[in-house]
Amino acid sequence: MVTLYWAEDGCIPPGDRGLAYGDGLFETIRIDDGCAPMQAYHLDRMTRDAARLRIPITRVELERAFHHALQRYSALYLESSWVLKLMLTRGTGGRGYRPTPDLKPNLLISHAIVPPPAPAGGVNVDFSRVPLTVNSLFCGIKSLNRIEQVMAASELQDDVFEVLMANAAGHVVEGTRTNLFIQTDDGWRTPPPHSVAVMGVMRRYVLERLHANGEAVHEAPILPDDMLAPNCRGIYLTNSVLGVVSVRTLAGQNLPVTGRLATICGSTPKME
Amino acid sequence: MVTLYWAEDGCIPPGDRGLAYGDGLFETIRIDDGCAPMQAYHLDRMTRDAARLRIPITRVELERAFHHALQRYSALYLESSWVLKLMLTRGTGGRGYRPTPDLKPNLLISHAIVPPPAPAGGVNVDFSRVPLTVNSLFCGIKSLNRIEQVMAASELQDDVFEVLMANAAGHVVEGTRTNLFIQTDDGWRTPPPHSVAVMGVMRRYVLERLHANGEAVHEAPILPDDMLAPNCRGIYLTNSVLGVVSVRTLAGQNLPVTGRLATICGSTPKME
Repeated sequence: MVTLYWAEDGCIPPGDRGLAYGDGLFETIRIDDGCAPMQAYHLDRMTRDAARLRIPITRVELERAFHHALQRYSALYLESSWVLKLMLTRGTGGRGYRPTPDLKPNLLISHAIVPPPAPAGGVNVDFSRVPLTVNSLFCGIKSLNRIEQVMAASELQDDVFEVLMANAAGHVVEGTRTNLFIQTDDGWRTPPPHSVAVMGVMRRYVLERLHANGEAVHEAPILPDDMLAPNCRGIYLTNSVLGVVSVRTLAGQNLPVTGRLATICGSTPKME
Repeated sequence: MVTLYWAEDGCIPPGDRGLAYGDGLFETIRIDDGCAPMQAYHLDRMTRDAARLRIPITRVELERAFHHALQRYSALYLESSWVLKLMLTRGTGGRGYRPTPDLKPNLLISHAIVPPPAPAGGVNVDFSRVPLTVNSLFCGIKSLNRIEQVMAASELQDDVFEVLMANAAGHVVEGTRTNLFIQTDDGWRTPPPHSVAVMGVMRRYVLERLHANGEAVHEAPILPDDMLAPNCRGIYLTNSVLGVVSVRTLAGQNLPVTGRLATICGSTPKME
Protein backbone atom coordinates (compact mmCIF):
# COMPACT_ATOMS: atom_id res chain seq x y z
CA MET A 1 0.00 0.00 0.00
CA VAL A 2 1.45 3.32 -1.10
CA THR A 3 0.83 6.52 0.90
CA LEU A 4 0.04 9.63 -1.15
CA TYR A 5 1.42 13.03 -0.21
CA TRP A 6 0.12 16.06 -2.10
CA ALA A 7 2.71 18.83 -2.38
CA GLU A 8 0.09 21.53 -1.79
CA ASP A 9 -0.52 20.07 1.67
CA GLY A 10 2.97 21.36 2.42
CA CYS A 11 4.46 18.53 4.39
CA ILE A 12 6.77 15.55 3.86
CA PRO A 13 7.75 13.28 6.77
CA PRO A 14 11.32 14.13 7.87
CA GLY A 15 12.22 10.44 7.92
CA ASP A 16 11.39 9.92 4.25
CA ARG A 17 14.15 7.87 2.65
CA GLY A 18 13.92 9.82 -0.57
CA LEU A 19 15.28 12.78 1.35
CA ALA A 20 17.74 10.84 3.50
CA TYR A 21 19.35 8.77 0.75
CA GLY A 22 17.78 9.65 -2.60
CA ASP A 23 16.08 6.29 -2.12
CA GLY A 24 13.41 6.59 -4.78
CA LEU A 25 12.64 7.64 -8.34
CA PHE A 26 10.47 10.12 -10.21
CA GLU A 27 8.55 10.94 -13.36
CA THR A 28 7.61 14.31 -14.83
CA ILE A 29 4.63 13.83 -17.12
CA ARG A 30 3.35 16.37 -19.64
CA ILE A 31 -0.40 16.83 -19.67
CA ASP A 32 -2.08 18.33 -22.76
CA ASP A 33 -5.84 18.94 -22.86
CA GLY A 34 -6.31 16.82 -19.77
CA CYS A 35 -4.45 13.82 -21.19
CA ALA A 36 -0.89 12.52 -20.94
CA PRO A 37 0.18 11.34 -24.41
CA MET A 38 3.13 9.48 -22.88
CA GLN A 39 1.21 8.09 -19.90
CA ALA A 40 1.88 4.43 -20.66
CA TYR A 41 5.61 5.04 -21.21
CA HIS A 42 5.95 6.87 -17.89
CA LEU A 43 4.01 4.31 -15.89
CA ASP A 44 5.88 1.46 -17.63
CA ARG A 45 9.20 2.96 -16.63
CA MET A 46 8.27 3.76 -13.07
CA THR A 47 6.82 0.28 -12.50
CA ARG A 48 9.86 -1.43 -13.99
CA ASP A 49 12.47 0.71 -12.25
CA ALA A 50 10.71 0.59 -8.87
CA ALA A 51 11.00 -3.20 -9.16
CA ARG A 52 14.72 -2.88 -10.01
CA LEU A 53 15.11 -0.88 -6.78
CA ARG A 54 12.87 -3.38 -4.97
CA ILE A 55 10.35 -0.70 -4.04
CA PRO A 56 7.07 -2.61 -3.84
CA ILE A 57 4.38 -0.96 -5.96
CA THR A 58 2.14 -2.25 -8.71
CA ARG A 59 1.34 -0.62 -12.01
CA VAL A 60 -2.32 -0.56 -10.96
CA GLU A 61 -1.49 1.46 -7.84
CA LEU A 62 0.52 3.93 -9.91
CA GLU A 63 -2.25 4.25 -12.46
CA ARG A 64 -4.78 4.89 -9.73
CA ALA A 65 -2.62 7.64 -8.21
CA PHE A 66 -2.01 9.10 -11.65
CA HIS A 67 -5.75 9.39 -12.39
CA HIS A 68 -6.42 10.74 -8.94
CA ALA A 69 -3.86 13.48 -9.59
CA LEU A 70 -5.24 14.23 -13.04
CA GLN A 71 -8.69 14.68 -11.56
CA ARG A 72 -7.41 16.84 -8.73
CA TYR A 73 -5.25 19.19 -10.79
CA SER A 74 -6.99 19.40 -14.18
CA ALA A 75 -9.41 22.12 -13.07
CA LEU A 76 -6.42 24.33 -12.21
CA TYR A 77 -5.17 24.35 -15.79
CA LEU A 78 -8.36 24.10 -17.89
CA GLU A 79 -7.11 23.82 -21.46
CA SER A 80 -3.47 24.76 -20.89
CA SER A 81 -0.69 22.21 -20.69
CA TRP A 82 0.99 21.37 -17.41
CA VAL A 83 3.44 18.91 -15.85
CA LEU A 84 2.58 16.27 -13.28
CA LYS A 85 5.43 15.10 -11.09
CA LEU A 86 5.35 11.75 -9.28
CA MET A 87 8.10 11.02 -6.76
CA LEU A 88 8.09 7.49 -5.39
CA THR A 89 10.26 6.75 -2.35
CA ARG A 90 10.92 3.56 -0.42
CA GLY A 91 9.03 5.02 2.54
CA THR A 92 9.60 6.59 5.91
CA GLY A 93 12.21 5.42 8.42
CA GLY A 94 14.32 2.38 8.80
CA ARG A 95 17.62 2.50 10.60
CA GLY A 96 20.45 3.56 8.29
CA TYR A 97 20.86 2.48 4.68
CA ARG A 98 19.51 -1.03 5.12
CA PRO A 99 15.80 -1.06 4.32
CA THR A 100 13.59 -2.85 6.82
CA PRO A 101 10.93 -5.22 5.49
CA ASP A 102 8.04 -3.17 6.92
CA LEU A 103 8.65 -0.08 4.78
CA LYS A 104 5.71 1.14 2.72
CA PRO A 105 6.39 3.44 -0.23
CA ASN A 106 5.46 7.12 -0.30
CA LEU A 107 4.27 8.85 -3.46
CA LEU A 108 4.68 12.63 -3.48
CA ILE A 109 2.52 14.29 -6.12
CA SER A 110 2.95 17.83 -7.42
CA HIS A 111 2.19 19.94 -10.47
CA ALA A 112 3.89 22.76 -12.37
CA ILE A 113 3.46 24.85 -15.48
CA VAL A 114 5.11 23.67 -18.70
CA PRO A 115 8.52 25.26 -19.30
CA PRO A 116 8.81 27.50 -22.38
CA PRO A 117 9.33 25.51 -25.62
CA ALA A 118 12.81 25.38 -27.14
CA PRO A 119 13.25 27.74 -30.11
CA ALA A 120 12.35 26.06 -33.40
CA GLY A 121 15.59 27.31 -34.97
CA GLY A 122 17.62 25.21 -32.55
CA VAL A 123 19.47 25.73 -29.30
CA ASN A 124 23.01 26.34 -28.10
CA VAL A 125 24.64 23.42 -26.33
CA ASP A 126 27.98 22.98 -24.60
CA PHE A 127 30.03 20.20 -23.08
CA SER A 128 29.83 19.87 -19.29
CA ARG A 129 32.84 19.85 -17.05
CA VAL A 130 31.00 17.37 -14.80
CA PRO A 131 31.67 13.70 -15.62
CA LEU A 132 28.71 11.33 -15.71
CA THR A 133 28.88 8.16 -13.62
CA VAL A 134 26.46 5.31 -14.25
CA ASN A 135 26.14 2.26 -12.05
CA SER A 136 25.86 -0.83 -14.23
CA LEU A 137 23.08 -2.27 -12.02
CA PHE A 138 20.99 0.90 -11.96
CA CYS A 139 21.62 2.42 -15.39
CA GLY A 140 18.69 4.32 -16.84
CA ILE A 141 16.77 4.70 -13.58
CA LYS A 142 15.40 8.21 -13.06
CA SER A 143 16.30 7.96 -9.39
CA LEU A 144 16.44 10.77 -6.86
CA ASN A 145 20.28 10.64 -7.01
CA ARG A 146 20.72 13.56 -9.37
CA ILE A 147 23.51 15.61 -7.85
CA GLU A 148 25.69 15.26 -10.95
CA GLN A 149 22.90 16.70 -13.08
CA VAL A 150 22.34 19.53 -10.58
CA MET A 151 26.02 20.43 -10.58
CA ALA A 152 26.22 20.24 -14.38
CA ALA A 153 23.04 22.33 -14.76
CA SER A 154 24.42 24.92 -12.37
CA GLU A 155 27.07 25.69 -15.01
CA LEU A 156 24.41 26.62 -17.59
CA GLN A 157 24.59 30.16 -18.91
CA ASP A 158 21.37 31.84 -19.90
CA ASP A 159 22.05 31.48 -23.63
CA VAL A 160 22.98 27.79 -23.33
CA PHE A 161 20.01 25.42 -23.35
CA GLU A 162 21.81 22.30 -22.22
CA VAL A 163 25.21 20.81 -21.40
CA LEU A 164 26.24 17.32 -22.49
CA MET A 165 27.91 14.98 -20.02
CA ALA A 166 30.56 12.39 -20.87
CA ASN A 167 31.55 9.23 -19.00
CA ALA A 168 35.02 8.14 -17.91
CA ALA A 169 35.62 6.61 -21.36
CA GLY A 170 35.04 10.03 -22.94
CA HIS A 171 31.75 9.00 -24.54
CA VAL A 172 29.16 11.75 -24.67
CA VAL A 173 26.09 10.18 -23.10
CA GLU A 174 23.32 12.66 -22.44
CA GLY A 175 22.36 16.13 -21.29
CA THR A 176 21.32 17.02 -17.76
CA ARG A 177 17.64 16.58 -18.67
CA THR A 178 17.77 15.21 -22.20
CA ASN A 179 18.86 12.17 -24.17
CA LEU A 180 21.02 12.52 -27.25
CA PHE A 181 20.57 11.52 -30.90
CA ILE A 182 22.83 12.33 -33.82
CA GLN A 183 22.33 11.78 -37.54
CA THR A 184 25.33 10.77 -39.66
CA ASP A 185 25.84 9.30 -43.12
CA ASP A 186 25.35 5.88 -41.49
CA GLY A 187 21.96 6.72 -40.03
CA TRP A 188 20.90 7.62 -36.51
CA ARG A 189 22.93 7.04 -33.38
CA THR A 190 22.13 7.26 -29.68
CA PRO A 191 24.23 6.02 -26.73
CA PRO A 192 23.57 2.39 -25.70
CA PRO A 193 21.15 1.61 -22.85
CA HIS A 194 23.81 0.40 -20.39
CA SER A 195 25.59 3.74 -20.66
CA VAL A 196 22.73 6.14 -19.94
CA ALA A 197 21.99 7.57 -16.51
CA VAL A 198 18.36 8.29 -17.34
CA MET A 199 16.57 6.21 -19.97
CA GLY A 200 14.15 8.85 -21.16
CA VAL A 201 10.66 7.84 -22.21
CA MET A 202 11.07 10.23 -25.15
CA ARG A 203 14.20 8.29 -26.15
CA ARG A 204 12.03 5.16 -26.32
CA TYR A 205 9.36 6.97 -28.32
CA VAL A 206 11.89 8.39 -30.78
CA LEU A 207 13.52 4.98 -31.30
CA GLU A 208 10.10 3.47 -31.98
CA ARG A 209 9.27 6.20 -34.51
CA LEU A 210 12.64 5.83 -36.26
CA HIS A 211 12.18 2.07 -36.52
CA ALA A 212 8.61 2.50 -37.74
CA ASN A 213 9.92 4.90 -40.37
CA GLY A 214 12.46 2.32 -41.60
CA GLU A 215 15.46 4.40 -40.57
CA ALA A 216 18.86 2.88 -39.73
CA VAL A 217 19.45 3.30 -35.98
CA HIS A 218 22.51 2.35 -33.96
CA GLU A 219 22.70 2.29 -30.19
CA ALA A 220 26.43 2.95 -29.99
CA PRO A 221 28.85 5.26 -28.18
CA ILE A 222 29.20 8.85 -29.39
CA LEU A 223 32.49 10.73 -29.16
CA PRO A 224 32.80 14.52 -29.24
CA ASP A 225 34.54 14.18 -32.62
CA ASP A 226 31.54 12.31 -34.03
CA MET A 227 29.37 15.30 -33.21
CA LEU A 228 31.68 17.91 -34.69
CA ALA A 229 32.65 15.88 -37.81
CA PRO A 230 31.61 17.15 -41.27
CA ASN A 231 29.40 14.08 -41.83
CA CYS A 232 27.27 14.87 -38.78
CA ARG A 233 23.99 15.98 -40.29
CA GLY A 234 22.29 17.00 -37.09
CA ILE A 235 22.22 16.69 -33.32
CA TYR A 236 19.03 16.39 -31.31
CA LEU A 237 18.07 16.36 -27.66
CA THR A 238 14.94 14.60 -26.46
CA ASN A 239 12.81 15.10 -23.38
CA SER A 240 9.22 14.05 -22.84
CA VAL A 241 8.10 17.51 -21.73
CA LEU A 242 9.93 19.45 -24.46
CA GLY A 243 9.85 16.87 -27.25
CA VAL A 244 12.61 16.84 -29.89
CA VAL A 245 14.98 19.80 -29.74
CA SER A 246 17.41 20.63 -32.57
CA VAL A 247 20.92 21.72 -31.66
CA ARG A 248 22.10 24.80 -33.54
CA THR A 249 25.55 25.21 -32.02
CA LEU A 250 27.76 22.85 -30.01
CA ALA A 251 30.66 24.35 -28.07
CA GLY A 252 30.32 27.41 -30.28
CA GLN A 253 30.49 25.47 -33.57
CA ASN A 254 27.56 25.83 -35.99
CA LEU A 255 25.65 22.69 -36.89
CA PRO A 256 23.19 21.92 -39.66
CA VAL A 257 19.57 22.31 -38.48
CA THR A 258 17.15 20.39 -40.67
CA GLY A 259 14.48 19.50 -38.14
CA ARG A 260 14.52 16.00 -39.64
CA LEU A 261 14.00 14.14 -36.36
CA ALA A 262 11.11 16.37 -35.32
CA THR A 263 9.52 15.75 -38.70
CA ILE A 264 9.75 11.98 -38.22
CA CYS A 265 8.60 12.04 -34.58
CA GLY A 266 6.46 15.11 -34.26
CA SER A 267 7.98 17.92 -32.28
CA THR A 268 6.26 16.84 -29.07
CA PRO A 269 4.77 13.50 -28.12
CA LYS A 270 1.23 14.82 -28.38
CA MET A 271 1.70 14.93 -32.13
CA GLU A 272 1.96 11.14 -32.16
CA MET B 1 20.98 32.28 6.14
CA VAL B 2 20.12 28.66 6.79
CA THR B 3 16.63 27.55 7.83
CA LEU B 4 16.46 24.94 10.58
CA TYR B 5 13.92 22.12 10.49
CA TRP B 6 13.63 19.90 13.55
CA ALA B 7 12.60 16.35 12.71
CA GLU B 8 10.29 16.14 15.72
CA ASP B 9 8.21 18.98 14.25
CA GLY B 10 7.25 16.40 11.64
CA CYS B 11 7.41 18.39 8.47
CA ILE B 12 9.78 19.02 5.55
CA PRO B 13 8.77 21.29 2.66
CA PRO B 14 7.79 19.10 -0.34
CA GLY B 15 9.92 21.27 -2.65
CA ASP B 16 13.13 20.59 -0.74
CA ARG B 17 15.90 19.83 -3.22
CA GLY B 18 17.41 17.22 -0.94
CA LEU B 19 14.32 15.15 -1.59
CA ALA B 20 13.93 16.04 -5.26
CA TYR B 21 17.53 15.45 -6.35
CA GLY B 22 19.58 14.32 -3.36
CA ASP B 23 20.91 17.87 -3.57
CA GLY B 24 22.62 18.07 -0.20
CA LEU B 25 24.84 16.26 2.27
CA PHE B 26 24.75 14.95 5.83
CA GLU B 27 26.65 14.12 9.00
CA THR B 28 25.86 11.64 11.75
CA ILE B 29 27.66 12.70 14.91
CA ARG B 30 28.14 10.56 17.98
CA ILE B 31 27.50 12.33 21.29
CA ASP B 32 29.00 10.92 24.51
CA ASP B 33 28.32 12.54 27.87
CA GLY B 34 26.93 15.62 26.15
CA CYS B 35 30.00 16.14 23.95
CA ALA B 36 30.93 15.16 20.41
CA PRO B 37 34.53 13.94 20.40
CA MET B 38 34.65 14.24 16.60
CA GLN B 39 32.80 17.56 16.41
CA ALA B 40 35.56 19.50 14.65
CA TYR B 41 36.08 16.74 12.06
CA HIS B 42 32.36 16.60 11.22
CA LEU B 43 31.96 20.36 10.95
CA ASP B 44 35.19 20.62 8.92
CA ARG B 45 33.91 18.08 6.45
CA MET B 46 30.43 19.53 6.12
CA THR B 47 31.77 23.07 5.65
CA ARG B 48 34.30 21.97 3.03
CA ASP B 49 31.94 19.69 1.09
CA ALA B 50 29.05 22.18 1.14
CA ALA B 51 31.46 24.59 -0.55
CA ARG B 52 32.37 21.92 -3.14
CA LEU B 53 28.65 21.59 -3.90
CA ARG B 54 28.33 25.41 -3.84
CA ILE B 55 25.79 25.29 -1.02
CA PRO B 56 26.33 28.59 0.82
CA ILE B 57 26.84 28.04 4.52
CA THR B 58 29.58 29.09 6.93
CA ARG B 59 31.26 27.01 9.56
CA VAL B 60 29.96 29.46 12.18
CA GLU B 61 26.35 28.85 11.09
CA LEU B 62 26.90 25.10 11.29
CA GLU B 63 28.48 25.36 14.71
CA ARG B 64 25.61 27.47 15.97
CA ALA B 65 23.08 24.91 14.72
CA PHE B 66 25.13 22.08 16.21
CA HIS B 67 25.16 23.68 19.68
CA HIS B 68 21.49 24.53 19.41
CA ALA B 69 20.78 20.85 18.70
CA LEU B 70 23.02 19.66 21.52
CA GLN B 71 21.18 21.90 23.95
CA ARG B 72 17.79 20.81 22.68
CA TYR B 73 18.38 17.07 22.70
CA SER B 74 20.84 16.48 25.56
CA ALA B 75 18.13 16.36 28.21
CA LEU B 76 16.51 13.45 26.33
CA TYR B 77 19.57 11.25 26.74
CA LEU B 78 21.09 12.36 30.07
CA GLU B 79 24.30 10.36 30.36
CA SER B 80 23.69 7.88 27.55
CA SER B 81 25.28 8.24 24.14
CA TRP B 82 23.25 9.26 21.10
CA VAL B 83 23.63 10.26 17.48
CA LEU B 84 22.91 13.70 16.06
CA LYS B 85 22.11 13.86 12.38
CA LEU B 86 22.50 17.04 10.34
CA MET B 87 21.16 17.07 6.78
CA LEU B 88 22.02 20.16 4.78
CA THR B 89 20.20 20.74 1.49
CA ARG B 90 20.49 23.46 -1.15
CA GLY B 91 17.04 24.70 -0.18
CA THR B 92 13.44 24.65 -1.33
CA GLY B 93 12.33 25.07 -4.91
CA GLY B 94 13.94 26.22 -8.09
CA ARG B 95 12.78 25.01 -11.44
CA GLY B 96 14.41 21.71 -12.42
CA TYR B 97 18.00 20.72 -11.76
CA ARG B 98 19.47 24.17 -12.28
CA PRO B 99 19.74 25.97 -8.94
CA THR B 100 18.45 29.52 -8.88
CA PRO B 101 20.58 32.17 -7.15
CA ASP B 102 17.94 32.93 -4.51
CA LEU B 103 18.04 29.48 -2.87
CA LYS B 104 18.70 29.41 0.87
CA PRO B 105 19.90 26.16 2.44
CA ASN B 106 17.77 24.03 4.76
CA LEU B 107 19.25 22.14 7.70
CA LEU B 108 17.20 19.19 8.95
CA ILE B 109 18.18 18.13 12.45
CA SER B 110 17.28 14.82 14.08
CA HIS B 111 18.50 12.47 16.79
CA ALA B 112 18.65 8.71 17.31
CA ILE B 113 19.98 6.18 19.76
CA VAL B 114 23.44 4.74 19.18
CA PRO B 115 23.41 1.44 17.30
CA PRO B 116 24.71 -1.61 19.21
CA PRO B 117 28.52 -1.84 19.24
CA ALA B 118 30.22 -4.33 16.95
CA PRO B 119 31.35 -7.50 18.75
CA ALA B 120 34.90 -7.15 20.09
CA GLY B 121 35.84 -10.51 18.59
CA GLY B 122 35.28 -9.15 15.09
CA VAL B 123 32.53 -9.22 12.51
CA ASN B 124 31.60 -11.15 9.39
CA VAL B 125 31.99 -9.25 6.13
CA ASP B 126 31.18 -10.09 2.55
CA PHE B 127 31.74 -8.63 -0.90
CA SER B 128 28.81 -6.72 -2.36
CA ARG B 129 27.31 -7.47 -5.74
CA VAL B 130 26.67 -3.73 -6.16
CA PRO B 131 29.48 -1.83 -7.90
CA LEU B 132 30.55 1.50 -6.42
CA THR B 133 30.66 4.53 -8.70
CA VAL B 134 32.51 7.66 -7.64
CA ASN B 135 32.40 10.95 -9.54
CA SER B 136 35.90 12.41 -9.74
CA LEU B 137 34.61 15.91 -8.93
CA PHE B 138 32.54 14.85 -5.93
CA CYS B 139 34.54 11.98 -4.44
CA GLY B 140 34.34 11.69 -0.69
CA ILE B 141 31.24 13.85 -0.24
CA LYS B 142 28.68 12.32 2.12
CA SER B 143 25.93 13.55 -0.18
CA LEU B 144 22.29 12.52 -0.12
CA ASN B 145 22.91 10.39 -3.24
CA ARG B 146 23.24 7.06 -1.48
CA ILE B 147 21.16 4.67 -3.50
CA GLU B 148 24.15 2.38 -4.21
CA GLN B 149 24.76 2.05 -0.47
CA VAL B 150 21.06 1.39 0.17
CA MET B 151 20.96 -1.34 -2.47
CA ALA B 152 24.18 -2.91 -1.20
CA ALA B 153 22.98 -2.76 2.42
CA SER B 154 19.70 -4.39 1.42
CA GLU B 155 21.73 -7.53 0.61
CA LEU B 156 23.01 -7.77 4.19
CA GLN B 157 22.10 -10.93 6.02
CA ASP B 158 21.61 -10.74 9.78
CA ASP B 159 24.94 -12.41 10.54
CA VAL B 160 26.87 -10.17 8.13
CA PHE B 161 27.89 -6.83 9.58
CA GLU B 162 28.93 -5.14 6.37
CA VAL B 163 29.48 -5.66 2.64
CA LEU B 164 32.46 -4.20 0.77
CA MET B 165 31.94 -2.45 -2.54
CA ALA B 166 34.39 -2.45 -5.45
CA ASN B 167 34.75 0.04 -8.29
CA ALA B 168 34.84 -0.68 -12.04
CA ALA B 169 38.61 -1.36 -11.80
CA GLY B 170 37.92 -4.14 -9.29
CA HIS B 171 39.44 -2.22 -6.38
CA VAL B 172 37.70 -2.78 -3.06
CA VAL B 173 36.96 0.74 -1.84
CA GLU B 174 34.71 0.79 1.19
CA GLY B 175 31.72 -0.66 2.97
CA THR B 176 28.22 0.77 2.79
CA ARG B 177 28.81 2.78 5.98
CA THR B 178 32.50 2.20 6.73
CA ASN B 179 35.95 2.95 5.34
CA LEU B 180 38.49 0.18 4.93
CA PHE B 181 42.00 -0.38 6.35
CA ILE B 182 44.17 -3.43 5.98
CA GLN B 183 47.46 -4.30 7.65
CA THR B 184 50.10 -6.17 5.61
CA ASP B 185 53.82 -6.83 5.95
CA ASP B 186 54.37 -3.44 4.29
CA GLY B 187 52.30 -1.53 6.84
CA TRP B 188 48.81 -0.11 6.67
CA ARG B 189 46.80 0.47 3.53
CA THR B 190 43.57 2.32 2.81
CA PRO B 191 42.09 3.23 -0.60
CA PRO B 192 43.22 6.61 -1.96
CA PRO B 193 41.06 9.73 -1.44
CA HIS B 194 40.02 10.13 -5.09
CA SER B 195 38.57 6.62 -5.07
CA VAL B 196 36.30 6.82 -2.03
CA ALA B 197 32.60 7.64 -2.18
CA VAL B 198 32.48 8.83 1.43
CA MET B 199 35.60 10.24 3.07
CA GLY B 200 34.82 9.22 6.63
CA VAL B 201 35.87 11.46 9.49
CA MET B 202 36.96 8.30 11.31
CA ARG B 203 39.23 7.51 8.34
CA ARG B 204 40.88 10.90 8.87
CA TYR B 205 41.19 10.27 12.60
CA VAL B 206 42.70 6.81 12.10
CA LEU B 207 45.23 8.11 9.56
CA GLU B 208 46.26 10.82 12.01
CA ARG B 209 46.68 8.30 14.81
CA LEU B 210 48.69 5.94 12.60
CA HIS B 211 51.00 8.75 11.52
CA ALA B 212 51.37 9.97 15.11
CA ASN B 213 52.30 6.41 16.05
CA GLY B 214 55.02 6.30 13.40
CA GLU B 215 53.32 3.55 11.40
CA ALA B 216 53.88 3.08 7.65
CA VAL B 217 50.65 4.00 5.86
CA HIS B 218 49.87 3.81 2.16
CA GLU B 219 46.83 5.32 0.49
CA ALA B 220 46.73 2.83 -2.36
CA PRO B 221 44.21 0.57 -4.13
CA ILE B 222 43.21 -2.68 -2.44
CA LEU B 223 42.34 -5.79 -4.45
CA PRO B 224 40.29 -8.70 -3.09
CA ASP B 225 43.44 -10.84 -3.32
CA ASP B 226 45.31 -8.41 -1.06
CA MET B 227 42.73 -8.99 1.62
CA LEU B 228 42.70 -12.77 1.39
CA ALA B 229 46.51 -13.15 1.00
CA PRO B 230 48.51 -14.93 3.74
CA ASN B 231 50.45 -11.72 4.49
CA CYS B 232 47.28 -9.82 5.36
CA ARG B 233 47.52 -9.39 9.13
CA GLY B 234 44.17 -7.82 9.66
CA ILE B 235 41.23 -5.99 8.09
CA TYR B 236 39.42 -3.14 9.81
CA LEU B 237 36.34 -1.06 9.13
CA THR B 238 36.00 2.46 10.47
CA ASN B 239 32.95 4.57 11.19
CA SER B 240 32.71 7.59 13.49
CA VAL B 241 29.74 6.21 15.40
CA LEU B 242 31.08 2.66 15.79
CA GLY B 243 34.80 3.37 15.90
CA VAL B 244 37.28 0.74 14.67
CA VAL B 245 35.75 -2.64 13.88
CA SER B 246 37.86 -5.78 13.38
CA VAL B 247 36.89 -8.16 10.59
CA ARG B 248 36.79 -11.80 11.65
CA THR B 249 35.72 -13.41 8.39
CA LEU B 250 35.66 -12.13 4.82
CA ALA B 251 33.56 -14.04 2.30
CA GLY B 252 33.62 -16.96 4.72
CA GLN B 253 37.40 -17.03 5.08
CA ASN B 254 38.85 -16.63 8.58
CA LEU B 255 41.14 -13.69 9.21
CA PRO B 256 43.59 -12.92 12.02
CA VAL B 257 41.99 -10.67 14.66
CA THR B 258 44.60 -8.85 16.71
CA GLY B 259 42.72 -5.66 17.52
CA ARG B 260 45.94 -3.82 16.64
CA LEU B 261 44.25 -0.81 14.98
CA ALA B 262 41.81 -0.35 17.85
CA THR B 263 44.76 -0.42 20.24
CA ILE B 264 46.49 2.34 18.29
CA CYS B 265 43.37 4.45 17.82
CA GLY B 266 41.13 3.56 20.69
CA SER B 267 38.09 1.53 19.77
CA THR B 268 35.88 4.62 19.54
CA PRO B 269 36.85 8.24 18.99
CA LYS B 270 35.93 9.16 22.53
CA MET B 271 38.93 7.14 23.68
CA GLU B 272 41.21 9.67 22.04
